[in-house]
Amino acid sequence: MNVLVVYAHPEPRSLNGSLKDFTVKRLQDNGHAVQVSDLYAMDWKASLDAADCTDWQPGARFNPSLASKHAYANGSQSEDIAREQDKLRWADALILQFPLWWFSMPAIMKGWVERVYAYGFGYGVGEHSDARWGDRYGEGMLAGKRAMLVVTTGGWEPHYGPRGINGPIDDLLFPIQHGTLYYPGFDVLPPFVAYRTDRIDDAQFLEIRDRLGQRLDDLWKTAPIPFRPQNAGAYSIPDCTLLPDIAPGISGFAAHIASEEPERAATADIAAPAMQYA
Amino acid sequence: MNVLVVYAHPEPRSLNGSLKDFTVKRLQDNGHAVQVSDLYAMDWKASLDAADCTDWQPGARFNPSLASKHAYANGSQSEDIAREQDKLRWADALILQFPLWWFSMPAIMKGWVERVYAYGFGYGVGEHSDARWGDRYGEGMLAGKRAMLVVTTGGWEPHYGPRGINGPIDDLLFPIQHGTLYYPGFDVLPPFVAYRTDRIDDAQFLEIRDRLGQRLDDLWKTAPIPFRPQNAGAYSIPDCTLLPDIAPGISGFAAHIASEEPERAATADIAAPAMQYA
Repeated sequence: MNVLVVYAHPEPRSLNGSLKDFTVKRLQDNGHAVQVSDLYAMDWKASLDAADCTDWQPGARFNPSLASKHAYANGSQSEDIAREQDKLRWADALILQFPLWWFSMPAIMKGWVERVYAYGFGYGVGEHSDARWGDRYGEGMLAGKRAMLVVTTGGWEPHYGPRGINGPIDDLLFPIQHGTLYYPGFDVLPPFVAYRTDRIDDAQFLEIRDRLGQRLDDLWKTAPIPFRPQNAGAYSIPDCTLLPDIAPGISGFAAHIASEEPERAATADIAAPAMQYA
Repeated sequence: MNVLVVYAHPEPRSLNGSLKDFTVKRLQDNGHAVQVSDLYAMDWKASLDAADCTDWQPGARFNPSLASKHAYANGSQSEDIAREQDKLRWADALILQFPLWWFSMPAIMKGWVERVYAYGFGYGVGEHSDARWGDRYGEGMLAGKRAMLVVTTGGWEPHYGPRGINGPIDDLLFPIQHGTLYYPGFDVLPPFVAYRTDRIDDAQFLEIRDRLGQRLDDLWKTAPIPFRPQNAGAYSIPDCTLLPDIAPGISGFAAHIASEEPERAATADIAAPAMQYA
C-alpha cells in the first residue's frame, strides 16, 4: 500500500525526527511505498493567501473560498499545493506526525491543511441543498483512505485524562480527527500518543518506538474510530444535528462516535427532558 | 484601558476586515487605547524555528523549548517576537479576531501564539515540582488581563450546537480559550461568534456589528468563563487531575468550568461508580 507521512518538526535530530525515520523504515520493511512531506525541510508556506491562486487578478478582493474553488477547478493552484494533493490521491493511508504545541498541530501543519484542502478537494464537494449537505464527514474525495495521528507531548498522561486539567486528549484532537480527517472522508484510526517526551532515556525511547511499530504493523487491521457519517440517517439535514433517537441524552463530541451498544431507542424520544442534554 | 487586537485575515475588504476596523473605532470612541497586530499585513512569520533565537549556535541541535527559554532570558529573541510580548505587557485586554478555518485559528495566528508565548513568558513560569505545577491556568505572566475571541464562520449555528455535527462551538474553542488564553493567566470572556458569514447582506452585517459593539462596550463588565484555577485546591498536584469532590461524575472540558451551583459533595465520593465518568 501507499503511505504519505506529513511531518512537522524543525529539528531532524529530535525525538520526532527519529520516530519519523523509524516510521518510514518500518513501513518500507513491511512492503509499503512511502512518501514524506517534511514540512520544515520543504520550507512549507504556512499562510494561505492570494498567491495560492496564481491567476487571481491583482488588486481584486481576495475571497479564500472562491479563489480556492477557482484555482482548483482551473488548474491555477500554486504548484506546492497541487503536489500535495497528488500525494494524497496516491496514498492509501495518511499519517500526520507532530509535537502537540498549544494543544493542536504546529502552525506549519495547520497551514498545510488550509492550503492543500482546496474547495472542491477538501471541502465544497457534492450537492449542497436543503436535502443534502455535501459529501463530508465520512464521504468526500479522500473516502476509502485511512489516517492516523502520531503525536508527542511534553505533558503527563494524567494531565490529558478524563478529568485532567488539559482536557482529554481525544477531545483535544477531535477538531483534527473529526474536523479535518473524517471531514473529507478518511477512516480515522485511534491516535498514537507519546507523553512526557521532554526528557526520555533510551529505555523510554525503545518503548515508544516499539509501541509505534506495532501500530504501523496494524495500520490496515486497526478498527477506525466509529464517527457517524453525516448522510446515513443519524443527522437531520440541513441543520446537521443528531436526530433525537441517536445517542439520546448525549451532547458534545462523544455523541458523534457510535457506541458499541444498540443505540436507537425502542421508541422515539423526541421530547427527552432537557436535563439529559446537560 | 489598553486593548491589543490580534487579527488574521488576508483581505482587508472582507467581513473580518470591516469588523476589525469597527472594533478599533468603537474601542477608541469609548476612550481606550488600541494597538492592532494585523498578522497578514505584517507578513508575520508563522513557523517557529531556530531563527527565533538569534544567538542559537548554527548547527546545534534545536530544542524549541530550551531555545525559547534561552532567548527570552538573554534578550536574544527575534525582534518581532519581543515586540508582540511588549504589546501584551502593555495591554489590559486582548482580542483575537479570526475566521474559523478547519475548526481552529488560521495557521498565521497559531504561529503567533507559538512564537510569542516564549518559555518564561507564556509557559514555564513559576515553580514546577511535586507540590506545584507552575503558574498556569489562572496564574502566569498575563494574569489580571482580559481576553476575548471574535470569530466568524461560514457554517450554520445549529451545526455548532450541543448535538450539531461539527461539535459545540465552546468545545471547539476550548483548546484556544482554556489552553492558550487561560493558561498564561487571562480572564477569558465568552466568545463573540458570527455564523453563516459566507454571504451576508447589509441587514445581517448591521446585526453582527451591533452585537459586537455591545460586547466591546461591555468588555470590562462581562463575567469571564469560570475556568477552575490549577493551584486553588480543585486539582491534585502533580497529576493535575480534578479531585473527586470537584464536579463529581463529570469528565471532559465541562468539568474545568465551575458551575453556579454548590459543588463540593457533602461527603467525598472517591469511589464513584465508573459509569459516572462515561
